[in-house]
Amino acid sequence: MSPFTGSASRTEHWRHLRLTVDAGVATVTLDRPDKLNALTFGAYADLRDLLPELARDGSVRALVLGGEGRGFCSGGDVDEIIGATLAMDTARLLDFNRMTGQVVRALRECPFPVVAAVHGVAAGAGAVLALAADFRVADPTARFAFLFTRVGLSGGDMGAAYLLPRVVGLGHATRLLMLGDPVTADEAERIGLISRLCAEGEAHQAAHALARRLADGPALAHAQTKALLTAELDMPLAAAVELDAATQALLMNSADYAEFHAAFTGRRPPRWQGR
Amino acid sequence: MSPFTGSASRTEHWRHLRLTVDAGVATVTLDRPDKLNALTFGAYADLRDLLPELARDGSVRALVLGGEGRGFCSGGDVDEIIGATLAMDTARLLDFNRMTGQVVRALRECPFPVVAAVHGVAAGAGAVLALAADFRVADPTARFAFLFTRVGLSGGDMGAAYLLPRVVGLGHATRLLMLGDPVTADEAERIGLISRLCAEGEAHQAAHALARRLADGPALAHAQTKALLTAELDMPLAAAVELDAATQALLMNSADYAEFHAAFTGRRPPRWQGR
Amino acid sequence: MSPFTGSASRTEHWRHLRLTVDAGVATVTLDRPDKLNALTFGAYADLRDLLPELARDGSVRALVLGGEGRGFCSGGDVDEIIGATLAMDTARLLDFNRMTGQVVRALRECPFPVVAAVHGVAAGAGAVLALAADFRVADPTARFAFLFTRVGLSGGDMGAAYLLPRVVGLGHATRLLMLGDPVTADEAERIGLISRLCAEGEAHQAAHALARRLADGPALAHAQTKALLTAELDMPLAAAVELDAATQALLMNSADYAEFHAAFTGRRPPRWQGR
Repeated sequence: MSPFTGSASRTEHWRHLRLTVDAGVATVTLDRPDKLNALTFGAYADLRDLLPELARDGSVRALVLGGEGRGFCSGGDVDEIIGATLAMDTARLLDFNRMTGQVVRALRECPFPVVAAVHGVAAGAGAVLALAADFRVADPTARFAFLFTRVGLSGGDMGAAYLLPRVVGLGHATRLLMLGDPVTADEAERIGLISRLCAEGEAHQAAHALARRLADGPALAHAQTKALLTAELDMPLAAAVELDAATQALLMNSADYAEFHAAFTGRRPPRWQGR
Repeated sequence: MSPFTGSASRTEHWRHLRLTVDAGVATVTLDRPDKLNALTFGAYADLRDLLPELARDGSVRALVLGGEGRGFCSGGDVDEIIGATLAMDTARLLDFNRMTGQVVRALRECPFPVVAAVHGVAAGAGAVLALAADFRVADPTARFAFLFTRVGLSGGDMGAAYLLPRVVGLGHATRLLMLGDPVTADEAERIGLISRLCAEGEAHQAAHALARRLADGPALAHAQTKALLTAELDMPLAAAVELDAATQALLMNSADYAEFHAAFTGRRPPRWQGR
Repeated sequence: MSPFTGSASRTEHWRHLRLTVDAGVATVTLDRPDKLNALTFGAYADLRDLLPELARDGSVRALVLGGEGRGFCSGGDVDEIIGATLAMDTARLLDFNRMTGQVVRALRECPFPVVAAVHGVAAGAGAVLALAADFRVADPTARFAFLFTRVGLSGGDMGAAYLLPRVVGLGHATRLLMLGDPVTADEAERIGLISRLCAEGEAHQAAHALARRLADGPALAHAQTKALLTAELDMPLAAAVELDAATQALLMNSADYAEFHAAFTGRRPPRWQGR
């Protein structure tokens, strides 16, 4: 257990999603297949709370986010979320939308790479969850749709208007967020929305293979790479170069850097420890 | 008329471009076909003044920007602009270049999507007008050329060095702005400079169809999506997520959001009002 | 010689790289072919010092950066750099990493375009040198690999986590920096990492042809285009538009702008002076 553990208790059971952890790889599964894994208030809250808890725990080195059944995630549930928000007052509406944004921030700020395993529908908030991941491993059945305007809302939901232009460029992002049209796996690959296209039915397997590789590799180096990619979107060049210099100086004192050199000179594969 | 109307009079006749408005769709046509719609001081000034006036008016929900004749726009007129600027003093030169930049800011900041209908030449300032639009609908005859360096000027004209890297990436943007070489419709599509490639001769028709769809849809949601895409290019992630939360909370009180839910539960198409 | 020359002496001999200058085109060659041009402390220091010296000199209008032998640059030398850094204290490690970052800043901030001529391996720091150039002219043998995590370090080295997402988008950049997998010339062209793909064995020749065109053209316009592209990545739209206006007003007083107009009206090619 991390020495930086205080009084906060560890959640025994996540009621709104499925979590397993296997040798440094956490798997989070949206598990409401009869509703295409439509998100409920509880599912958003669990995603918001789970990621910082895993980060505090310190044993997770990579995370796979996927959906049970026919697709990844169809977004916010029309009945349980859209219907409910129509009866909310202003303060409650803001609370709800801040919570969903906190999920995206948690995905971008957690100290391990997140691999979204996408098959079938990734719509609305589901598309943004995939977008906020570090990797999107998708099979040919994947369909992304940022369909917020289709329900009368802004395409800029949960940071999508920040993230999507930085992933696919402003032109494609405007088209996708403004119109909400579905994006096939082929188009997603062509415009850079997918990290890796795999064979049909193999998204989960391919995502796990990638997460396993990441977890068994130099995990501290991966974590810092993610942190810098996230931070440097919001920094000028001179500051980014300074942050890189401090980070590399730090990692040049790490066990894994010394191990690389020992392995290289000893002509053997490195044994990474992630620290 | 908007209650936020003061003393400013409404322009009766735009002398340097053609304007029509049809049920929420404004069409602005550069109308100097004998000169490939080369821009004059008057044309820049009209573009600068027209967009805020339409924004104040409040009845426009989408705008098409196109060119009469053989092409979209060949840029600043060599005689009427380049020749004239050679005789200007420093203060006047700054005034001129600020005016052209204000046109681009007006395109990015007006509260309705702008669809550029591009056929034939879109060169110099013409290429930047298209770039500043939210959508570029182009036919196979379209040729983009950011040819500022070809006349001895900076490729960063009217915000092009800000916008182009955010649309096509820094590598392509450097090549296009530094060299001024023409970009075919095929390449423009491949690098993300075009939103939609249509059949030859159909750019105006396809742009109008898109504008019609936007104007007849949830126009307030479109307007906010545009505003967030524009603003969040200049914001850090945490601020963007907060802006999204406030915007969605606002729109969850809108008529269109309630209408979506009523239509969905009533199994009928929504009747959007744009508010 | 520039009037803005003070006491600083001019370096007679660069010991860790090869420099030639021909009519405004500087050629910098990494010249350690037996080690695939692996970088040493001296090579980094020479790159850091050379670029500002050339900038002060004022006679260089374009620069080609290439590698002698079988490839462009294999990155930091495993023995001379990785081995040596393992014995350094914290202050020295920071000095080293700041120096490498200064090379990238020098490439981005020097007042002339830099054309990387890439054949064979461009790995680690070698990949970042190419990334920091304005143009990457590559032949089909080119292989880019941002393999920092492979040695236990952060993929954000020398500004890579700032630059790469702005060139190829955040999705591809995450994949390339986190995994360190090699990128073929074909993929590099597809994702926008290459400016121009040339025939095998012709990277140097094609890079020189481009540099010659840049140096013989309106070089002040090119320099300002580069400066704006670099600066406007870190500026909001309104400020960028204002910077563009001031820059164009300035250049409208330049000799080259007047020359363009004289040549155009005289129906002859312009004689560019680069001022």
